[in-house]
Amino acid sequence: MNPIQHLVVIGTGLIGGSVSLALKRAGVVKRVTGVGRSRENLVLAQQLGVVDSWTHDVAEAVSDADVVLLSVPMSAYESVFSSMADHLPARCVVTDAGSTKQSAVAAAKKFLPHPERFIAAHPIAGTEQSGAAAAFAELFDHRLCIITPEFDSDADALELVKQMWEQTGSSIEVMDASQHDEFLASVSHLPHLAAFALVNAVAKQATAEQDPFQFAAGGFRDFTRIASSSPEMWRDISLCNRAALLHQIELFQAELNGLRDALVAGDENRLFNEFSAARDARENWLAGHGEDL
Amino acid sequence: MNPIQHLVVIGTGLIGGSVSLALKRAGVVKRVTGVGRSRENLVLAQQLGVVDSWTHDVAEAVSDADVVLLSVPMSAYESVFSSMADHLPARCVVTDAGSTKQSAVAAAKKFLPHPERFIAAHPIAGTEQSGAAAAFAELFDHRLCIITPEFDSDADALELVKQMWEQTGSSIEVMDASQHDEFLASVSHLPHLAAFALVNAVAKQATAEQDPFQFAAGGFRDFTRIASSSPEMWRDISLCNRAALLHQIELFQAELNGLRDALVAGDENRLFNEFSAARDARENWLAGHGEDL
Repeated sequence: MNPIQHLVVIGTGLIGGSVSLALKRAGVVKRVTGVGRSRENLVLAQQLGVVDSWTHDVAEAVSDADVVLLSVPMSAYESVFSSMADHLPARCVVTDAGSTKQSAVAAAKKFLPHPERFIAAHPIAGTEQSGAAAAFAELFDHRLCIITPEFDSDADALELVKQMWEQTGSSIEVMDASQHDEFLASVSHLPHLAAFALVNAVAKQATAEQDPFQFAAGGFRDFTRIASSSPEMWRDISLCNRAALLHQIELFQAELNGLRDALVAGDENRLFNEFSAARDARENWLAGHGEDL
Repeated sequence: MNPIQHLVVIGTGLIGGSVSLALKRAGVVKRVTGVGRSRENLVLAQQLGVVDSWTHDVAEAVSDADVVLLSVPMSAYESVFSSMADHLPARCVVTDAGSTKQSAVAAAKKFLPHPERFIAAHPIAGTEQSGAAAAFAELFDHRLCIITPEFDSDADALELVKQMWEQTGSSIEVMDASQHDEFLASVSHLPHLAAFALVNAVAKQATAEQDPFQFAAGGFRDFTRIASSSPEMWRDISLCNRAALLHQIELFQAELNGLRDALVAGDENRLFNEFSAARDARENWLAGHGEDL
């Protein structure tokens, strides 16, 4: 690809910072400006070479941008789009890295003068760390990046965004935003909700004498690991992907009700078959591409 | 404690074998006989010094036993108790290592001539391995072992079983069998069912074109790890602990319905508060005694 002359990264944390480092590694970006609220994080980003310069001012930063990457919480999209709307050059292409895509597209359509030049993306990568100090150029290597264009997306903008994410080291998968949101609700958002719900169900059974957590072991620790995730982030993701998440809760409850009915009926064959099917599906996934996660 | 002259371990796998090795390490057992169905595993157990001798014959083995340890699947309890019933010496004390305790006690009451000398136990320990080759003396060190006597349990038998499990390296917790079953349903049996159900819900959404597992990452891998557990074992545990498990499914569904309602209402405060409560509860548990699991 032709190098991007000026990339503006709004939200210079783990994801935004790693995109910058990965594109610098690939030699496909000339200059990167970081935008954020925390002066401390921006100064650090510059010291570490994650960005070349920084500002708190979205409008100023984007006025000279070729590509803008949004890497901020889902709840900040509308205000960030609104701040940049009057200052984006006509040539500028905008992309993002958020976990829900229909809401990202809706916010772009609501606030950007040229929403056809916003191409939504979701790199399936991350670590437990956050902030510019956690960023590294290899974060996206061999990971999937889902790109969800609209029917009226600008073809050149789409091509540029595809190439850009490819240059971070990702494999690209193009799909509908609604399909993305449904799949991610099933394999990511619902498991988070279920883990939060289960921990709360256990916690409420503690008495003055006895605490059920005392009897929890390694299986419980792994099952509930995602219940230690950021409440702010998961509140935002849940609300931004409400419809798909509600659908996935329904599908999950239907499965759980099936197991409950089998238990009530003492149906040992059904229990065995359901458990076996789940184990086989999971083992197939691990054998395919889960091992290197 | 006075050394056990003759310990009979029925089911010489990871748990039964490790009890034998731990008691030998402590110098509190003179002779161990292994009983099982697989000749290969029993020969190996003897070669590895896990047992001193072995037989396939439960009746023969227990006729000269001071302590009998059952370490077999829950579904085998009735037939094993029935095989030993007419051959147990009057002095003999029986204990077990199964995951559900009311069902163990019920089977003992149904088949043993002196159920007051059966003291149910559940060591909270294990690995993903199985068989005598996986056994090791340190498995129970610093782990919890729950002992669930009945109101009419023989006091000497209870004391002996407590001391025996203590000598394996465990900390002992004494509680009602019903309380045990409820707590274990909440922190172990329900998470397994939920993980099986969630994997099946995801698997059913695969189409010829697209497979949602493709978009699963590390959080999904950890959340569903227990869905790779043995279907036979979890069918047995689920059925043996049916009442408590049904109650726990109900409590979990109530929590999940609460999150669903908050989502429907767009109640961001409630979502935030529920997620925060779960994260705090989990972090407190980890800070207390979860880190070394």
